[in-house]
Amino acid sequence: MARKTAMRRTGCPINFGLEIFGDRWTLLILRDLLLQNKRRFQELLNSDEGIATNILADRLKRLEAAGVIDRSSDPADGRKVIYRATEKGVALVPVLLEIAAWGATHDAKTDAPADFVPGFKADRAGTIAAFTARLRDD
Amino acid sequence: MARKTAMRRTGCPINFGLEIFGDRWTLLILRDLLLQNKRRFQELLNSDEGIATNILADRLKRLEAAGVIDRSSDPADGRKVIYRATEKGVALVPVLLEIAAWGATHDAKTDAPADFVPGFKADRAGTIAAFTARLRDD
Repeated sequence: MARKTAMRRTGCPINFGLEIFGDRWTLLILRDLLLQNKRRFQELLNSDEGIATNILADRLKRLEAAGVIDRSSDPADGRKVIYRATEKGVALVPVLLEIAAWGATHDAKTDAPADFVPGFKADRAGTIAAFTARLRDD
Repeated sequence: MARKTAMRRTGCPINFGLEIFGDRWTLLILRDLLLQNKRRFQELLNSDEGIATNILADRLKRLEAAGVIDRSSDPADGRKVIYRATEKGVALVPVLLEIAAWGATHDAKTDAPADFVPGFKADRAGTIAAFTARLRDD
């Protein structure tokens, strides 16, 4: 059986993921990084849900420690940092898109574009590839 | 623009989902209900991650209030309750499977069966349909 510790309670692959990103703020940060191509602390801080500065800083550290994002100097201003998804992070695009498709389907007042869910259902692989390519090229 | 309240901060479809299931325990309960066909409070309580009784009870109430699960009398013991995913809940199977595929891919010590990720990648729709059919038939 899997060894149980505070950091690693089971060998379940879902629990493995959730120990890294199983909270609402982390998943919202991943949304901004993966689907909205945000890169800078201030951009992430300005998201509509109103994340607190200390929570954002904490979650970015955790995501970096887990190898999901990395940090580098901002070419536009060397004193600033840009955050980018690693390949391990880019691999979370399908998780975020499935949550988006579920929310857009079940929220009658969603702000999602009307063509998002039909487009995703008709060409799921193509939708994922489009977001993924944008992250790699950017 | 979307109206912002404590319960509904934005019209983002990802945030809509995360306000319902954006925490680790809720997602682990959904794993048990959707992928492991657990139905009873005691079965959910016995999961390897060691959820506390009060957290389990709270999250089940929230999932029921959100229309993701419903309750009925246990045919085997009318004093007991069984929990089942509604169609809105069954529609979360792809989210859970994507998290599982990510975890199984990125955890070198995963307990996931070796054929899970290749099978899911080769036939994602078929894998989802198999889990979904089992929930509806059960």
